[in-house]
Amino acid sequence: MEKILPTIHSPDDLAKLSDAQLPQLADEIREALCSLVSTRSAHFASNLGVVELAIALHTSFDFRVDRLIWDTGHQVYPHKLLTGRYDEFPTIRSKGGLMGYPNPAESEYDLFLTGHAGCSVSTALGLRCGDELARPAQPRNVVAVIGDGSFMSGIVVEAMNNAGGLKKNLIVVLNDNKMSICPRVGGLAESLDRLRMAPFYTGLKAEVQRLLGRLPVFGDPVERLISQVKAAMKAGLLGGMFFEELGFRYIGPVDGHNIKQLQKYLSMVRQFQGPVLLHVVTEKGHGYEPAAADPTGFHAPPPLSADNNGAIAARSTRAVSYTEVVRDALLDRMRRDPRVVVITAAMCQGNMLEPIRDQFPTRFFDVGICESHAVAFAAGLAKAGLRPVVDIYSTFVQRAYDQIFQEASLADLPILFLLDRAGLVGPDGPTHHGVFDLTFLRPFPNLVVLAPGDKADAAAMVEWAFDCPHPTAIRYPKAAAELLRPDAAPIELGAAEVLRRGPDGAIVACGTLAGAALKAAKRFAADGRRLTVVNARFAKPLDAQTLLSVIEESPWTLTIEEGQLQGGFGSAVLEAANDAGLDTRRIVRLGIPDRYIEHGERDELLSDLGLDAAGIVAACRKAMARRSQREADRLRVI
Amino acid sequence: MEKILPTIHSPDDLAKLSDAQLPQLADEIREALCSLVSTRSAHFASNLGVVELAIALHTSFDFRVDRLIWDTGHQVYPHKLLTGRYDEFPTIRSKGGLMGYPNPAESEYDLFLTGHAGCSVSTALGLRCGDELARPAQPRNVVAVIGDGSFMSGIVVEAMNNAGGLKKNLIVVLNDNKMSICPRVGGLAESLDRLRMAPFYTGLKAEVQRLLGRLPVFGDPVERLISQVKAAMKAGLLGGMFFEELGFRYIGPVDGHNIKQLQKYLSMVRQFQGPVLLHVVTEKGHGYEPAAADPTGFHAPPPLSADNNGAIAARSTRAVSYTEVVRDALLDRMRRDPRVVVITAAMCQGNMLEPIRDQFPTRFFDVGICESHAVAFAAGLAKAGLRPVVDIYSTFVQRAYDQIFQEASLADLPILFLLDRAGLVGPDGPTHHGVFDLTFLRPFPNLVVLAPGDKADAAAMVEWAFDCPHPTAIRYPKAAAELLRPDAAPIELGAAEVLRRGPDGAIVACGTLAGAALKAAKRFAADGRRLTVVNARFAKPLDAQTLLSVIEESPWTLTIEEGQLQGGFGSAVLEAANDAGLDTRRIVRLGIPDRYIEHGERDELLSDLGLDAAGIVAACRKAMARRSQREADRLRVI
Repeated sequence: MEKILPTIHSPDDLAKLSDAQLPQLADEIREALCSLVSTRSAHFASNLGVVELAIALHTSFDFRVDRLIWDTGHQVYPHKLLTGRYDEFPTIRSKGGLMGYPNPAESEYDLFLTGHAGCSVSTALGLRCGDELARPAQPRNVVAVIGDGSFMSGIVVEAMNNAGGLKKNLIVVLNDNKMSICPRVGGLAESLDRLRMAPFYTGLKAEVQRLLGRLPVFGDPVERLISQVKAAMKAGLLGGMFFEELGFRYIGPVDGHNIKQLQKYLSMVRQFQGPVLLHVVTEKGHGYEPAAADPTGFHAPPPLSADNNGAIAARSTRAVSYTEVVRDALLDRMRRDPRVVVITAAMCQGNMLEPIRDQFPTRFFDVGICESHAVAFAAGLAKAGLRPVVDIYSTFVQRAYDQIFQEASLADLPILFLLDRAGLVGPDGPTHHGVFDLTFLRPFPNLVVLAPGDKADAAAMVEWAFDCPHPTAIRYPKAAAELLRPDAAPIELGAAEVLRRGPDGAIVACGTLAGAALKAAKRFAADGRRLTVVNARFAKPLDAQTLLSVIEESPWTLTIEEGQLQGGFGSAVLEAANDAGLDTRRIVRLGIPDRYIEHGERDELLSDLGLDAAGIVAACRKAMARRSQREADRLRVI
Repeated sequence: MEKILPTIHSPDDLAKLSDAQLPQLADEIREALCSLVSTRSAHFASNLGVVELAIALHTSFDFRVDRLIWDTGHQVYPHKLLTGRYDEFPTIRSKGGLMGYPNPAESEYDLFLTGHAGCSVSTALGLRCGDELARPAQPRNVVAVIGDGSFMSGIVVEAMNNAGGLKKNLIVVLNDNKMSICPRVGGLAESLDRLRMAPFYTGLKAEVQRLLGRLPVFGDPVERLISQVKAAMKAGLLGGMFFEELGFRYIGPVDGHNIKQLQKYLSMVRQFQGPVLLHVVTEKGHGYEPAAADPTGFHAPPPLSADNNGAIAARSTRAVSYTEVVRDALLDRMRRDPRVVVITAAMCQGNMLEPIRDQFPTRFFDVGICESHAVAFAAGLAKAGLRPVVDIYSTFVQRAYDQIFQEASLADLPILFLLDRAGLVGPDGPTHHGVFDLTFLRPFPNLVVLAPGDKADAAAMVEWAFDCPHPTAIRYPKAAAELLRPDAAPIELGAAEVLRRGPDGAIVACGTLAGAALKAAKRFAADGRRLTVVNARFAKPLDAQTLLSVIEESPWTLTIEEGQLQGGFGSAVLEAANDAGLDTRRIVRLGIPDRYIEHGERDELLSDLGLDAAGIVAACRKAMARRSQREADRLRVI
């Protein structure tokens, strides 16, 4: 049979297909997805779930005019395949290739980089209001597709409440697959489950509605309540009171794997006045049995490989990661310290917390994709005398910035933030790089900010943090854990560790780039140049004494960090040197420049930015040259 | 009649009062509130509204054991009067006096500094979970009192959803006064209004519930839906489906000015298993007619004074503020530029946006206390070709940090952020000081960050920002607007303005401290020392060329900023100087040190921190001395 998918160069080509061909197209999209994950780690189960939905959307709207936002964007692969990106599809998430999220630079069909969850309803409402003002005569339909995991992010309810108040035409498609990455949580999840138990949208409900007419009518004083009764019954039968209370019309649930039914209801809701929520039920991993059976494991699996029988399974070749080192240290502490409780925001799998969840179910809280709540909740736990740990990605903690300020730092409560994925995360790209944390955490009083130099540090810092009476953040990368030296100095508040000493220059590393710094120093040692290498450990408070004496004693000092240079670790060193009246001309800062870093493998990106051993060697040479130039200038002046 | 309030040294003393004395106590609390606002600006109308609620809470629970959180904390005055702070009450919001928000340092009855809205349900849930783990045998009741304005902050729904899922005993009192600071907005507001129209909690509803038993029972296939019908009817009659869907039991509405009824329902809900929402209806400004009639005007009025007839009215003595200058520039632009739309997060009054709301109702959006949504919504508007302005306090923009990252900076959309109340806000204190923005905004690529030196700058920057194709933030303080010079240089991207030139030293000011810098320079001029003064204008991109040439030409340079020193403006100057290989020993940074600044008048606080003309003079003298010492050292070496 002729393949259809390669012939789809834009959604226009979908119009040429018969109804019967659409399911075949769906099968081919699933094949493309399976073929992709046999070559690289990519988001998988969620994309298998939205194949029919993507086809139905692109056959029901014209999204060059109408507006479509996928939230979160990791479910955007079928959409990419249908919008002219089939040929490039195998490059997705690789350097120079397609991004794993919607990307306005790639396609007019992609509006926002929705790597972080929950903003789609807000941006969709903004588009609707903006389009109405900008071109009132030519209305555009606006559709936000949002997963049920993202759905309980506070911003979604903020946006729905605003949309309900403004009564704008806005279609929110709730893609309910009963999951975020891990199974979703919370009270509303149970309400959604009740809705899913209702029969799929058929004639049945109309029948029930007719029965409502048979309700007895009571006399006063209850009479005035009857209209409320009827409204409540109707809404209760149709489900979705939560949405109705926010001012949305609720339609659903609809079978998300039935293209015809999806098209029918999409056509219906586009006629509605005011905001409407279409509840679509899908199965994460649909069409690929292992993924449907284990959607968490297949959320973004490592590359899959075909076995002898042609079945594909996950290859396992991973080294021990910082994520695991930190988790194990935490688990170890939890066994000894009943005060320790762990909170995650839907990242139980990403942060590899399953053993903690299973061994300490009463001391483990997955609050869903609700980072703001996670931190404020931790503050309550801390106030009750516990030692809460908020285990979260660096980039996602940005969603709780105000709670870090008020509930952790200003309240000075001993909350431990484990900031996983700090630095460059690799294939997820700019929405996920955790490169701002050193800067944005530094200004808050009371907060202690650490970055381990290696795995011994990482474990020791977790242990140390529980004895620190202040809020503490430990940032570490998505990387294989390294060991720098057999005997690490113990962690002490605000104390750096000198890894090696030499008179010819110094490298001060903040975080796990210490390993690359040591490698660079060894290369110089081979040339007879002996460098000092310092593992800073603390970004705040800085070990001013050690660092400044290194700076004073060294002809030049290079600071390195896996983070933005503006206001980051190197900047902290400059501040300390400046406060002490030192000449900072001897300091050179290496880090991430003032631009967004694309996606690619972390090692590739680090190398491009000069943040690997070779780059550090080059930076050292520049620092030497600068120093020599300055010396020459000085001699000329004298 | 003997006064009761002065005899209340702790809530224990309330137990000695008869039921008849409690309304008298309420009257006396209102007198104390009226007396307070005759002497200083303070939160007023909201506190008048919760007098009976505070009395009922403290007579129904023992909050040395049980947990009480007021959200937001500006409604905490009656609570302070009842918890041993009557004598100090007149000092509230003055330097060294009581804080205008709950403050754990003041009283064991204050748990969190709840200056920012919406975290109470999260912290209350954390307390409940923590208490259960820490002392399972001795349960504590946990009560969060939250205003209906705060209620639609996303974090509240995040927390309620989590509480509903965990099924913890938790009492959330929704203090519904139909207002946040301005009238509340959104779809749920209408649902709450419908609830308010229901009769106050009496026997009527029980009667209706009995009637439910009379419902006809239908045969299959509808039968299985009947239990759903009944559940929906029950919840619909009792109201509050929104809360019920989140897993909360809803009780209400209850008259919030009837102490006996409040006590009755508080006793009832403390018996419940699982989370419960008690909907209390109050009147903002209750008991003081002018405030009840105009609760927005009396939210935090300027000091009131008694007229000849003894009636009190607001004194009006205010100079033109930066808030007004910016608002007027915006209004002016809106008249000429139909693309401009304005978004505020419940700060229509605080940001003095009423004329914009009234003159451009379709181009003005008050989204409620939903800062995250506000920014993402703006991104949608920008994508539709409009020029959205997010007018928000500096401290509150922290709540949208992740949206500034993803929706504004990464998407590089031309959103204008007007960050009012940047710097030290005065009596509101540490929860409200906007002192972190320069640091936390600097690391984001694409974002342009400005701080006007005076009112001419402020107006010109607003105008300029609409021609800037990038996201732009303008920060300015809560202060009277000053004019530095008759003819300001036009605003150019990344260009500073040299206000005066002199060879004896330089002051580089970021923001309106430029005025104090000029005063300091004039004092030196009187001594024959001529200083350079630069109005930096841009914190990002920095005018490296101008600033570095000033630094090179001056024996010393002082940077000043109304913000934290860590990673702030002075740090940006150090970075630029370091990148250019300049000796930064000649630079001295003046700003806010690494601790939280208490409340007090802004001028007092600035003076304490050396951020007024006298402080700048002193800092200049230090810079000179440091310079002389260095010169002496150098001579000794040679």
